[in-house]
Amino acid sequence: MRRTITGFSNPTVKFLRSLREKKHRRQERRFLAEGLRLLTDARESGILPEMLVMATNRASHPLLEALEADVAAAGGDVIEMDEDILVKVTGKDNPQAVAGVFGEFDTRLATIERETAPIWLVAQALRDPGNLGTMLRTGDAVGAGGLILIDDCADPFSVEAVRASMGAIFTQKLAQARWDEFLPWLRAGNGQLVAASLRDAQDYRTAPYAAPCFLMVGNESRGLPTEYEDACDLRVTMPMLGRADSLNAAVAGAVLAYEALAHLR
Amino acid sequence: MRRTITGFSNPTVKFLRSLREKKHRRQERRFLAEGLRLLTDARESGILPEMLVMATNRASHPLLEALEADVAAAGGDVIEMDEDILVKVTGKDNPQAVAGVFGEFDTRLATIERETAPIWLVAQALRDPGNLGTMLRTGDAVGAGGLILIDDCADPFSVEAVRASMGAIFTQKLAQARWDEFLPWLRAGNGQLVAASLRDAQDYRTAPYAAPCFLMVGNESRGLPTEYEDACDLRVTMPMLGRADSLNAAVAGAVLAYEALAHLR
Repeated sequence: MRRTITGFSNPTVKFLRSLREKKHRRQERRFLAEGLRLLTDARESGILPEMLVMATNRASHPLLEALEADVAAAGGDVIEMDEDILVKVTGKDNPQAVAGVFGEFDTRLATIERETAPIWLVAQALRDPGNLGTMLRTGDAVGAGGLILIDDCADPFSVEAVRASMGAIFTQKLAQARWDEFLPWLRAGNGQLVAASLRDAQDYRTAPYAAPCFLMVGNESRGLPTEYEDACDLRVTMPMLGRADSLNAAVAGAVLAYEALAHLR
Repeated sequence: MRRTITGFSNPTVKFLRSLREKKHRRQERRFLAEGLRLLTDARESGILPEMLVMATNRASHPLLEALEADVAAAGGDVIEMDEDILVKVTGKDNPQAVAGVFGEFDTRLATIERETAPIWLVAQALRDPGNLGTMLRTGDAVGAGGLILIDDCADPFSVEAVRASMGAIFTQKLAQARWDEFLPWLRAGNGQLVAASLRDAQDYRTAPYAAPCFLMVGNESRGLPTEYEDACDLRVTMPMLGRADSLNAAVAGAVLAYEALAHLR
């Protein structure tokens, strides 16, 4: 269905704006993705928005027309609104001429098919949505199966995380679990759990990585809890030649993922 | 000199708040660093703030007392203010009980001593202060000499970049230059310029890295200009197995830096 919205107080505008807040995303089980590039990534991954929102005075673009046609054909909503209303939806910091509403994915552990990829990324209590999105993006690059979020992480469906993922939110599998749910799940099948650690660890360049390899990084400030490190099959250490004793979490995950990839390809 | 500030309209409060804006940092040639950890990193690197600002009702801490003593002994200002005023200075998003004002470092290329380190990081038109700070942090970890910022980058002295550097702003050398200034400087001495590139590139795992090795990453959206890639001694490529054709800039720099380190140690 195609319609045009002309007022700020329209319920659809309120609905769209509400999706910038986690509480409302949870209630609605929907999230926002902004920008033609992200929406095209989704479309090319076979995922269409339930609702496509565009500026009335947009420039025409073949990819946008393709998107619009596909959303309409799939029975989705196609909505036009004045640019000043759309800016209220997409946020002033990063105005985009197009946005889409997607249904949240099923993020239960049970949906992970571990044998489908040699590498899986695991993040524990990762608080920064930019880091979370960056890990999804890295996962896409190394051919990982997806990202498993342990304990209280940033919301992967936040606008910031979706943006930082550069479309990988639509291509990487995503799961969310508590540690005491994750560990039994992992041990019920094949899988090597690896953590970057400073303690009792092997050189990350020569460690015996084995697929499916679950590479785990910890919280930005605290790192991994000791008992989580203890539960790992492999603890690996990267050189830290300077004053600091840790890397940015997304950086640590990427250095580890590229190393494991070189061993497992 | 030690003094207590009790009003929001105090000129020192206005000065401190002004340092959150690039324009004022440029005018004053000063920048803010927040939090006891960052300030302690600075002190242990031999760099003291000109002005130390603390909450009147702060908890006592041996590191803070050491800092206070050192700043006072060096003739710096030690200033106390009520917490509600300090919050105005340090920003509501991340209130810290202590902050310091530092003189900006000399960031001319001429201050770089290239033979002092095997690796130097180079960022071109890097726009995100978090990425910039993360690159400094990575540089510290791999024993790089510092970070050279080419063309219009985010301000390395912004609160966000300083925070993301996790103290590496005080240990890594920092330089800023235009490309047409950087390239002649580089070619006037020993140095291998390396770029991550998808074009005409060698496998990053087996490429012949040579010290001093200058590892360059480009802008978050556009990557490196073609002519900059052409000027490199080595173009290396990392596997990109998914849909995306690029990594986060700080991630690409880190994967490359850790690889070069393994070859050059």
